[in-house]
Amino acid sequence: MFDRVWLNANLATMQGEGLGPIEDGAVAAKDGRIAWVGPRATLPLPLAGHAAEITDCAGAWILPGLIDCHTHLVFGGDRAGEFEQRLAGATYEEIARAGGGILSTVRATRAATEEALLAAAAPRLQALLAEGVTTVEIKSGYGLEAGTELRQLRVARRLGAAHPVAVVTTLLAAHAVPPEFAGRRTDYARHVAEVILPAAAREGLADAVDAFCERIAFTPEETALVFDAARAAGLPVKLHADQLCDFGGAALAARYRALSADHLEHASPEGIAAMARAGSVAVLLPGACYFIREEKRPDVAAMRAAGLRMALATDMNPGSSPALSLLLMLNLGCTLFRLTVTEALRGVTVHAAAALGLADRGRLEPGLRCDLALYRIARPAELCYWIGGNPCCGRVVEGL
Amino acid sequence: MFDRVWLNANLATMQGEGLGPIEDGAVAAKDGRIAWVGPRATLPLPLAGHAAEITDCAGAWILPGLIDCHTHLVFGGDRAGEFEQRLAGATYEEIARAGGGILSTVRATRAATEEALLAAAAPRLQALLAEGVTTVEIKSGYGLEAGTELRQLRVARRLGAAHPVAVVTTLLAAHAVPPEFAGRRTDYARHVAEVILPAAAREGLADAVDAFCERIAFTPEETALVFDAARAAGLPVKLHADQLCDFGGAALAARYRALSADHLEHASPEGIAAMARAGSVAVLLPGACYFIREEKRPDVAAMRAAGLRMALATDMNPGSSPALSLLLMLNLGCTLFRLTVTEALRGVTVHAAAALGLADRGRLEPGLRCDLALYRIARPAELCYWIGGNPCCGRVVEGL
Ligand SMILES: [Zn+2]
Ligand SMILES: [Zn+2]
Repeated sequence: MFDRVWLNANLATMQGEGLGPIEDGAVAAKDGRIAWVGPRATLPLPLAGHAAEITDCAGAWILPGLIDCHTHLVFGGDRAGEFEQRLAGATYEEIARAGGGILSTVRATRAATEEALLAAAAPRLQALLAEGVTTVEIKSGYGLEAGTELRQLRVARRLGAAHPVAVVTTLLAAHAVPPEFAGRRTDYARHVAEVILPAAAREGLADAVDAFCERIAFTPEETALVFDAARAAGLPVKLHADQLCDFGGAALAARYRALSADHLEHASPEGIAAMARAGSVAVLLPGACYFIREEKRPDVAAMRAAGLRMALATDMNPGSSPALSLLLMLNLGCTLFRLTVTEALRGVTVHAAAALGLADRGRLEPGLRCDLALYRIARPAELCYWIGGNPCCGRVVEGL
Repeated sequence: MFDRVWLNANLATMQGEGLGPIEDGAVAAKDGRIAWVGPRATLPLPLAGHAAEITDCAGAWILPGLIDCHTHLVFGGDRAGEFEQRLAGATYEEIARAGGGILSTVRATRAATEEALLAAAAPRLQALLAEGVTTVEIKSGYGLEAGTELRQLRVARRLGAAHPVAVVTTLLAAHAVPPEFAGRRTDYARHVAEVILPAAAREGLADAVDAFCERIAFTPEETALVFDAARAAGLPVKLHADQLCDFGGAALAARYRALSADHLEHASPEGIAAMARAGSVAVLLPGACYFIREEKRPDVAAMRAAGLRMALATDMNPGSSPALSLLLMLNLGCTLFRLTVTEALRGVTVHAAAALGLADRGRLEPGLRCDLALYRIARPAELCYWIGGNPCCGRVVEGL
C-alpha cells in the first residue's frame, strides 16, 4: 500500500495557521506523493504486509521540503572583487566607471557558454539543497537580450534535471536596461514584451515573468507593458517592488494579481492591503536588506494586520545578496524583520509555494508531493536560532 | 626531506602587513611543521627523490588554518525556546522571570554530565572545523562554581583530543554572579580568585583567564582581583570589555597586558590607544552585535589609527551569538564593521593567533605548525563575500 514510511519523527506539517506540529508522527509515500501523515499511533498497520521501505528518523523533525522562491543563481562571474574594492574605500561611482555593478554581471553572463553557466551555478544550487531545499525558483535577468536570457533559463532547466530538486523558472528580462538601449528604457521594455518574452514562452522556458519596478529600473507603465505580454502568453507574473522607494509596485502587482511582489521595504499600507485582497504573496528578502545595509524594514506589522501571506527567500544574486543559505534567511528574517518562528518557517514552506503558484507542495498533507526535509533538532525554533551550521540530516524529493 | 608537499595552489601566507599572496605557490611539511613555502618554480627539486606525498590542489587557495579565538561552545541546553518567545512578544523581564537568560544555561550546564556536554558540543565544533578552522578557543563560564567550571574545561580538552584541532581553554568563572552569591558580587569575584582559578590552574585545565567586565557583571576592581590571581598562577588574561557601555575595560586589559580585550563596541579612544601600546589584540565579535541588534559599532577607524591588531571570532554562545560559522563572521565583519577583506582574513589567522598568545601559527612560514585550510575560490575576497555556503575543500592539522 505504501512505498516508503518515515517513523520516529516529529512533524511540522504547516497545516492550519501554525506549524501544525505532530510529535511522534509518521509520513508515508506512494508514487511520489504523500499517502498518509499523522501520529504514529494511528498509522494503518501492519506495515510489514505492505512491503514498504521503513526509515527510522531517530527523533528528527520533518518539515515539508524547503522552497527558495526567489533566486538569481545562474550568472557569469561574481562580484567579490567589487565587494573588496568598496570596503577599501571605492565609491559606487568609481566602481561603475571601472565597469562594475550589474552590467559587469551582464557582460560576464553574455560571454559565458551554457556549460560554463551550468558549472558555476551547480555548487550554489547544491549549497541550498544541502540544507533541505527541494524546490528552487531561478530567474534570468543577466542577459537583457533574447539569446542570453533564454540561455539562462535553459541552464536553470538543466540544473533541475541534473539534481534532485524541482526548479521553477522566471523570465526577468526587464531587470535593467542593457547598454544597447541606453537612454531608451521604454523601447527596451517594449522589446521584452514583443520579442524576448514571446520567445521564452514559445520554447516553454519560463514558468512566470518578473520585472524590476524601481526608479533606477522600470516605471509602473513600462512594467505593465511586460505584464500585459505575460498575460497574453498565459504566464503568471511576479514583481521586484518598492525595494528602494515607494514606487507603487505593490499596488501594480495587486492589479495584475501577481503571484508575489518581492522586497517591499518601502511598500505603502495601501499597496500592502491591495496585495492581500488580490491574494498575492509578499516575498521578504532579508539577505539583500542586510548586505546593502538598507535601514528601512518591510512593514511586517501592516502585512500581518492585512492578512498578507509572507514568504522568505535568499534572493541569491552576485550584487546585493550573495547568499547561499536559506536557513540563514530564517535567522535574518527573525533578527532583522522580527518575524516569529512560525512566520519564518511558513515563509519557506507553505507561503513560498504560494509565491510560486504551486498548490501541490509546502505542507505535509495527503495528495501533495512527498518532498521532505529532515533535521536533527529538538524543536523547529532551532532552524531560526542558529547562525550557520546545518542540521539537515535527510532530504526526500517526490518520495525518493 | 619533506613529508608532504602541496602544489598547484595559490597561497595567502599572511606574511608582512597584507595577505602575503603567492600565486602558483607550494607548501611543504616536515614533522608537522611548515618546512618550505614559496612560488612553486623555486621549490627545491627533484621532489621525487625526497619520497614526499604530493597533493595537487587544483588551483585552490591555501590559507593558514583558521583560528576561532573566542567561543563558549561547551554548554548545556540551548536558548532557541527563549528566542522564539522573544519574537512572539515576551519581554526580557518576562523571560528572566520564567527562568530564562544566562542562568538557564548555567542550570542546564550544571545538570549535564561530562559525557552529555561533550556530545552536545561535538557537532558545534565539527561545524567550525568543516570550514577550515584548525585552532579553537573554548571558555568555561556556565558553571560559576568549581565543579562545573572545571568540567567544562575538561570537556574542552577532550574535544581537542577527539578531533583534529588544537583547543585552547580559558577559565571564565567570572562570567556572571551565580544564584548562591546573589547580592554578593565581590565575594564571588574573590571566590573565583581564591578557589576556582587556583583549582583550574592546579589541574592544568586553563590556558588563560577571562572575565566579563560590564555594569551587569563585574566592576574593574572585581576583575582586577581575578586578574591578580591569574598573574599569581602564571596565566595570561583576556577580557570581555566595553560591550554594553564604556566601563574602562579596554584600559584595564591594557594595564594587565591582556592577550586581548573582546567586543569593545563602546571602548574609548584612550582605551584603544592603551591596548595598542600594551600589545593587546582587539577581538571583534560581529555575530553578537548582529544577534542582539546592538547599533553601536566598535571604532574600527580608531583601532586602525592606533595600530591596534584586530581579530574576528564567532563568540559562539547560546545567548547572544549562536553562531556556528567563522566564515560568516568574515562577511559580518566586512558588512557591519566595514573591515577590509585583508583585515577580516588577518583577523581569523595571524591576529587571532596573537589573541591567544600563539606565535607558532596563523601564517604560512617555515618553522610554524603546518595547519592549512584549502578553499575552492578564485580569490581570497570570496571568503568574505559569500553569505553561507562552504568552499573549504581541505584541512591540514600539523601536516596531516
Ligand atoms: Zn531579486
Ligand atoms: Zn564571549
